[in-house]
Amino acid sequence: MPHDLTLVLGGARSGKSRFAEAEVTACLGPWHYIATAQAFDDEMRARIGQHRVDRVQGWITHEVPFRVADCLSALPSDAPVLVDCLTLWLTNHLLAEHDLHAEYAALEAALSNRHGPIWLVANEVGLGIVPDNALARQFRDEAGRLNQRIAAMATRVRFIAAGLPLALKG
Amino acid sequence: MPHDLTLVLGGARSGKSRFAEAEVTACLGPWHYIATAQAFDDEMRARIGQHRVDRVQGWITHEVPFRVADCLSALPSDAPVLVDCLTLWLTNHLLAEHDLHAEYAALEAALSNRHGPIWLVANEVGLGIVPDNALARQFRDEAGRLNQRIAAMATRVRFIAAGLPLALKG
Amino acid sequence: MPHDLTLVLGGARSGKSRFAEAEVTACLGPWHYIATAQAFDDEMRARIGQHRVDRVQGWITHEVPFRVADCLSALPSDAPVLVDCLTLWLTNHLLAEHDLHAEYAALEAALSNRHGPIWLVANEVGLGIVPDNALARQFRDEAGRLNQRIAAMATRVRFIAAGLPLALKG
Repeated sequence: MPHDLTLVLGGARSGKSRFAEAEVTACLGPWHYIATAQAFDDEMRARIGQHRVDRVQGWITHEVPFRVADCLSALPSDAPVLVDCLTLWLTNHLLAEHDLHAEYAALEAALSNRHGPIWLVANEVGLGIVPDNALARQFRDEAGRLNQRIAAMATRVRFIAAGLPLALKG
Repeated sequence: MPHDLTLVLGGARSGKSRFAEAEVTACLGPWHYIATAQAFDDEMRARIGQHRVDRVQGWITHEVPFRVADCLSALPSDAPVLVDCLTLWLTNHLLAEHDLHAEYAALEAALSNRHGPIWLVANEVGLGIVPDNALARQFRDEAGRLNQRIAAMATRVRFIAAGLPLALKG
Repeated sequence: MPHDLTLVLGGARSGKSRFAEAEVTACLGPWHYIATAQAFDDEMRARIGQHRVDRVQGWITHEVPFRVADCLSALPSDAPVLVDCLTLWLTNHLLAEHDLHAEYAALEAALSNRHGPIWLVANEVGLGIVPDNALARQFRDEAGRLNQRIAAMATRVRFIAAGLPLALKG
């Protein structure tokens, strides 16, 4: 089990990244930022660029769309880390048709080996109506399952709405 | 008013069924499981089968897509009961173009007559963007109205995210 | 900063308007109701009509799809006010392609000048899967940003599900 793992759940534009960043930067730095977004188009590039501008200096950024477990294992075990976000990481693996169960197991093992504090940002995507297409339903189910698994091993879980946290755990 | 009614709200794959099942099985059994799902296609059959495998032994399962009130009235009044889920029951009645107000009234009357503990699982579906088509909007409105009615008569309401409960009532 | 501003967040048919109205009418009246809905079609007209019927007497209704800031400035500064809802007001401005940042600034200034209690109802729309079309994504992002801004200046924030409030702030 990780010593200090916070899962930060929330919807789109709920302020979950900003909340997590504020908690990380209250620790002694440097802080490691694992960015899982892939810039497929201009809209995505603009979002990633804006996130980068929004962050204060002092972050070491790692762009890791797939191998988050390997990246975590390569970092100093007690360094503060933010992974933003888990749901994009899942999306990347789903679209690449990777074996999700192997990926989940590798991620959980890497998380368990951390000694320093770690924050994982994830989207809650299951609170709208049932999507029309089967891939969207599969994504929604997997995202929910992954959130449950990470929440089970987390020491703290926060649900963010309008920038404000509700404590689900810890 | 029912003596002990818990409404378990949550999104898709939020862990709401598992949460409710864990609470039910903390009671003295046997436990009655009222399943409202109708298996129209392979995907739905797979979901229902998985839910069945996930449950431990000791459950008496009733497959009741429509007449949940009648089923509740036929069970021993003090037996622990789980209804999973209310939102599929609503969907079944909506698609069959039944009189929803009559159905709600019958359900509320049957719930009021229970002496044993009862759990009702329901989906929260109103937290995404407005759906494109009118039927989806009608469904979303009705699901929200039904959740409000059941919440008003519940002794406890829990909102589940990532498998973890937030207390909305009781 | 406003002295007494409550943001009431929730999904469709979550009971957020009814919750807000109950809080407003616990104050000494008359109460001012700023309705931002525009009736483009029969469905919307029916929703607006139903909301009107649901309200008790004693309300002074102002239909203000755009200029909420001006309306607030014209009301007695200590009168209780309900704005329902912020998300439709945003939709109106988005569709009219107005400058949102100017609108947000004017709204925040008008809110800061209130001495009486004010309630703002808003939709949480970011908890479903990513919408297919770019306009819906833009709307979802703006609604989330606006909710964060108003939440930051609010003295109280409530998240409503099934008619029941969770305290996010105050």
